Parts: sequence; C-alpha cells; structure tokens
Amino acid sequence: MMKQIRLAGRGGQGQILAGIVLAEAAVAFDGLHATQSQSYGPESRGGASRAEVVISDSPVDYPKVTEADCLLCMSQEAYDTYRKEVTDDGLVLVDSTFVEPDVEDEGVIQEPITSVAENELGRAIVANMVALGILVQLTEVVSVEAARQAIVHRVPSGTEELNVRAFEKGLSMGEKTQ
Amino acid sequence: MMKQIRLAGRGGQGQILAGIVLAEAAVAFDGLHATQSQSYGPESRGGASRAEVVISDSPVDYPKVTEADCLLCMSQEAYDTYRKEVTDDGLVLVDSTFVEPDVEDEGVIQEPITSVAENELGRAIVANMVALGILVQLTEVVSVEAARQAIVHRVPSGTEELNVRAFEKGLSMGEKTQ
Repeated sequence: MMKQIRLAGRGGQGQILAGIVLAEAAVAFDGLHATQSQSYGPESRGGASRAEVVISDSPVDYPKVTEADCLLCMSQEAYDTYRKEVTDDGLVLVDSTFVEPDVEDEGVIQEPITSVAENELGRAIVANMVALGILVQLTEVVSVEAARQAIVHRVPSGTEELNVRAFEKGLSMGEKTQ
Repeated sequence: MMKQIRLAGRGGQGQILAGIVLAEAAVAFDGLHATQSQSYGPESRGGASRAEVVISDSPVDYPKVTEADCLLCMSQEAYDTYRKEVTDDGLVLVDSTFVEPDVEDEGVIQEPITSVAENELGRAIVANMVALGILVQLTEVVSVEAARQAIVHRVPSGTEELNVRAFEKGLSMGEKTQ
C-alpha cells in the first residue's frame, strides 16, 4: 500500500499544516510510515504553495510525489498545474470558491471549501481542515479518529475545537458526495 | 551552492517549525530555492523527530538530506543516530541540556539551548528558535533578517515577539562561540 497526496494552493491556506496532520495521523495513530515535504522556489514567491505526503505500510524512501492518488487544489493555478499528474483512478478535489475546472473534466469533486469555512465556521483559515475532512471521508487514507487526534496535537493551542469542527464539517460534506 | 540541514530531536521540540522557517526564509526573503521534509516511521512513535531542509541557489530536485552540512541534535538519540552523516567541515550543534557528545568528538558546538529557553525566556517551547538563532549566526545559510521575517510570518499569532526574542538570544549565543 502506498498513497501519494498533493495539497496545492496559495500560501496562507494551510496546506503545510494539513500535510503534517495527515502524515502524523498515518504514523502516530494508524501505525503506517509517512513522509511530508514542501518544495519552495521562485514560483512560491508568487504565492503558490504545495505540500506533499506519501503514506505507506512500509518505509518510504522517496519523499516526493510523482503521480498523486489524491490531489487537492485550492487555487486555479494549482488545478492548472497539477491536474494532469494524477493516477487514472485518483481523487481530485477542488475548492470551488477559487477553482473552475475544465468543462470536460468530469472526474473532479467540487466543494465550496473556503466559503464554508468562512460562512459556516466563521474563519476562512480553517478551510484546510474542511478540505482534510472531505479527503479523509473520501479516501480513508488515514482513519477519522487518527486525523482527529493529529489535529488536536498539531494545531495552535486554543484553536483545537474550531479546527476539529472544521474537520467534522468536511467529513459530512464528503459523505454527501458519495 | 547547496546546503543540507538536518534538525533532529524528540517530538514536541519544534524541529518541523524551525525547518519550515528556514526554508521560507531562504525562498521568500533571500531568493533561494528550498525543500523541507520530514520522514515519520516506527522510530518516530518512540518520540524521535527529524526535519530536513535543502537550500540551494538552483531548483532542488531531491528533497532528502544525504550528508548534512549542518546538524542540530536536541536529544541523545539524535546525536547517536546522525552524528556520522555530516560533511567533514559540517557544523554539529547539540543541545547540552540533553546531549553529551562523545569525549573524542571535538568538532561539536555545545549550547544549553533548552535550559536557556526555559530559564532566560520562560518557555522551553522556544528552544527551537534559540537553536535557529545559533545556526543562522554560525552558518549564514539564510540572512538574519530573512529568518526574522519568516519567524514572524510562521509562528502562531500572538507568539511572534517571544519567538523573535528567542531567535535573537540564539544569535548572541552563536556570536560568542565564534
């Protein structure tokens, strides 16, 4: 078992934290192996941000995602750049607040992630946890309970409850698309 | 120019955040390229934690550290595991609060990083920023100003001033060892 996950968008949307939570959930609570990485370059000076997680049941040698089993796009640029690098049966989730997929791209799950975070949870900043909830619900790459514990462990002290609520909102959004 | 940096210790000591700050400083403020990664496995279930950063003036293809130009050890286990994987003229910094280097290991810089964080800054949790200050002072892998800006950008809101003070304490500790 090996799953490659790419979380892409703009800086400030919390992809890195979401990636760390996924990796920690896989290892600390689900007993798997994981690597988590980001590459930064001139492109990220324009605001692009990308976190990658590789989860496996055996040690992970190469920490870089080659072809994603799961892609989250929280900006149009992320979608335009990474949509092609997904396995045939891979999951593509886009934040429809910012992304309009190609009309012929039928395999895409569209959810108003940031709008929901802003309007229903009161904080756009927890969009990453809403996205994580949808991903965990749809891919089961880590268990719900593992993700919840990793969130509590890793988010800034005092924001645990808000972040868990955002994650749970994502779980129920993911459930509805199934 | 390429610099490989490994920050190792136990979970909760903030190596990941320190790595993210270094990578962001290199890219956003110093115009370099960087990757930042963590590998998690069964060993990390025992509490070991390791963040790796590769900084370069050209795109970084392989995000994993092979031989460190700079190694930070905040636990004895980290020292025992990674001391050998350092370049001949590489920098080894250990937190003497937790690490006792081999007697014949002369190339090691020992600083009571966590004790200083706890006793002089009031919070052991900012030991990572003290360590970062020493590293930046001794290696100049990123500029002081770039690191300071990345800290303010990346640490939890409300803790900026404490973290910057910890970083500056590290700078002056680094200065004294030179």
